[in-house]
Amino acid sequence: MEVYLDNSATTRVLPEVAELMTRIMCEDYGNPSSLHIKGMQAEQYLRGARKTLSTLLKAEEKEIYFTSGGTESDNMALIGCALANRRQGNHLVTTQIEHPAVLKTMRYLEKEGFRVTYLPVDGSGRISLDDLQSAITPQTILVSVMHTNNEVGSLQPVQEAGALIRRVNPRTLFHVDAVQGFGKSRIYPGKMGIDLLSASGHKIHGPKGVGLLYIGNRVKIQPILHGGGQQSDLRSGTDNVPGAAGMAKAAELLYAHLDQDVERLASCKRRFLDGLRQLEGVRINGLLPDSPDGEGTAPHIVSASFYGVRSEVLLHALEEEGIYVSAGSACSARKPQPSATLRAMGVEQWMLESTVRFSFSVYTTMEEIDYTLRTMYDKIPMLRKYTRR
Amino acid sequence: MEVYLDNSATTRVLPEVAELMTRIMCEDYGNPSSLHIKGMQAEQYLRGARKTLSTLLKAEEKEIYFTSGGTESDNMALIGCALANRRQGNHLVTTQIEHPAVLKTMRYLEKEGFRVTYLPVDGSGRISLDDLQSAITPQTILVSVMHTNNEVGSLQPVQEAGALIRRVNPRTLFHVDAVQGFGKSRIYPGKMGIDLLSASGHKIHGPKGVGLLYIGNRVKIQPILHGGGQQSDLRSGTDNVPGAAGMAKAAELLYAHLDQDVERLASCKRRFLDGLRQLEGVRINGLLPDSPDGEGTAPHIVSASFYGVRSEVLLHALEEEGIYVSAGSACSARKPQPSATLRAMGVEQWMLESTVRFSFSVYTTMEEIDYTLRTMYDKIPMLRKYTRR
Repeated sequence: MEVYLDNSATTRVLPEVAELMTRIMCEDYGNPSSLHIKGMQAEQYLRGARKTLSTLLKAEEKEIYFTSGGTESDNMALIGCALANRRQGNHLVTTQIEHPAVLKTMRYLEKEGFRVTYLPVDGSGRISLDDLQSAITPQTILVSVMHTNNEVGSLQPVQEAGALIRRVNPRTLFHVDAVQGFGKSRIYPGKMGIDLLSASGHKIHGPKGVGLLYIGNRVKIQPILHGGGQQSDLRSGTDNVPGAAGMAKAAELLYAHLDQDVERLASCKRRFLDGLRQLEGVRINGLLPDSPDGEGTAPHIVSASFYGVRSEVLLHALEEEGIYVSAGSACSARKPQPSATLRAMGVEQWMLESTVRFSFSVYTTMEEIDYTLRTMYDKIPMLRKYTRR
Repeated sequence: MEVYLDNSATTRVLPEVAELMTRIMCEDYGNPSSLHIKGMQAEQYLRGARKTLSTLLKAEEKEIYFTSGGTESDNMALIGCALANRRQGNHLVTTQIEHPAVLKTMRYLEKEGFRVTYLPVDGSGRISLDDLQSAITPQTILVSVMHTNNEVGSLQPVQEAGALIRRVNPRTLFHVDAVQGFGKSRIYPGKMGIDLLSASGHKIHGPKGVGLLYIGNRVKIQPILHGGGQQSDLRSGTDNVPGAAGMAKAAELLYAHLDQDVERLASCKRRFLDGLRQLEGVRINGLLPDSPDGEGTAPHIVSASFYGVRSEVLLHALEEEGIYVSAGSACSARKPQPSATLRAMGVEQWMLESTVRFSFSVYTTMEEIDYTLRTMYDKIPMLRKYTRR
């Protein structure tokens, strides 16, 4: 049995998406910048993609920009807004548990002369709105808070943060990295006070190499890639038509039964959490204090620490049985270092080296959940014996 | 009959490439950063792609970086090197006929405090090595010269420029935008004194949304996208495995019979040039003075000006007969403005509004060339009559 529980790292592309992309690549392959009919056809795919995604976000078509992925979207939002608004102030606010695409970009901006406040999180991986309020000054040009944490699945109070920012400093822009949240939750930037929102194709059963950045009409931003002037001169480079169309198709297919899917994912999570609790020496990370069933957290992510078992050891033991999980998040998995998210949450020392992430998708079945639990019941006592020797 | 002669804007993806990408997207869809077998599989595709492309360029695997396309490659080369080397100097050199991905990036760097020299070109669209030599100072940190001009197909003396730069200022880095040249000509950065080289997937029958940047081992460069640390921390973002593998596959397939293809393209070009000369009031742009057959220019690009016929009018007249060409280059086609390349070449005023680009591919046949010529013989006298009224 093959059980892929690493969907927060990347997902299987839906067959309808691959078919559409193949048609665009091999038949309707024009460049939208071309004036002839093959260019027009390509432009129509692009517009269709923009229309689909803007509808899902309840945004305007011209607020949707395509990028090469979540990382570029985050970089563009942060660097583009910081540089375009530096006359207004040099202060930025974010959290200690952002994805490296935000954290490392903030570090870069610090070198360029910006000042950055990193908000702490509580034991469940959430920021406090009081901390956010205190951090915002008249010089604060941008706040960046992720929607869903990629390592533990905690959700930030994004809507409340949006309202708060508008109240405290109406000129401060609000960016939300929704790479893990888009397609798992209904997010409406306009309604939620979000000025910029990042999402990625390959986390929602769409292609790698494409992402979107929602940029609200009021946002002052400058490009980070310069060239032919595509996308209103904000993101140059030949439009990735199959990528954009593929991402939109994936989103459309997911949103068609989003509520059922989310409910099913949440019940997978509940069952998995119940099952994990049958094991001794297990801690679940990122749950809200009074919600052991995972309510108020991402429906597709479970982070658990197994006392006396190193993450990589458990990962490979599960791999032997066809179960694929992550030790930390994929983006930093190749460079083993203690998770910044877990540290910020103040977990005990042993947990930093013994935490595994399980992430589900619409393809995940209850049988797979049960198989994974049974495999862990088998393996973990044995792995602990080895470790103690 | 459908005749696509806009291959310098973008190309049809080879079916083998689309098949490979579909397999990777729907089956071997892992994230190379994941530690389990699905991650390893993905990593192998990525390595294979890097190996293929490094072999074709006679480079080392670790000198190949994947980007989202030619534009990002150019931006990364220019901005990344300018920022990383600004202690050494603040002077950059390029030509007046670069692609906007270079020209606009240079304009951006000027705003950031760098000084840029734009080398002129002669009537055939070539820089002079004497001009280049005079431009290089001890403060020159980078020279960027394109391999093949995208509008007129002129070739720059890249190898001679590389040797000259090394001689005049060995610390000056040499970037070559080979987006139009890669896959049409054998380019070996190491042998040619090139430190950085940009190429794009969708110009060589590979996918849109992927490009490569060759970065020689001696190059000091910093990233322009910050995040998870992929690609030796120089280009963060989940690796676009299907894109990279697709681009490498396309390159491999093209290089397998590159010499024959180039010869066939050159004979298409000769035939087309001969045919164009049957028309009155036609000027061919970008040819070398003593080579009316196109020798010493790109085999796949013909730029011609038709006296008394506006570019867009001819473009649409040909489109009616199923022939797709470009008025100028695709990247700026949507914003009609006189071509910077043609102006730099010092063409007569009327030519700025009456120039069309025909660009061939490995799919182009002699029948298509002849059909296009016959169609122009039919149409152009009529179009001129209308224009004169």
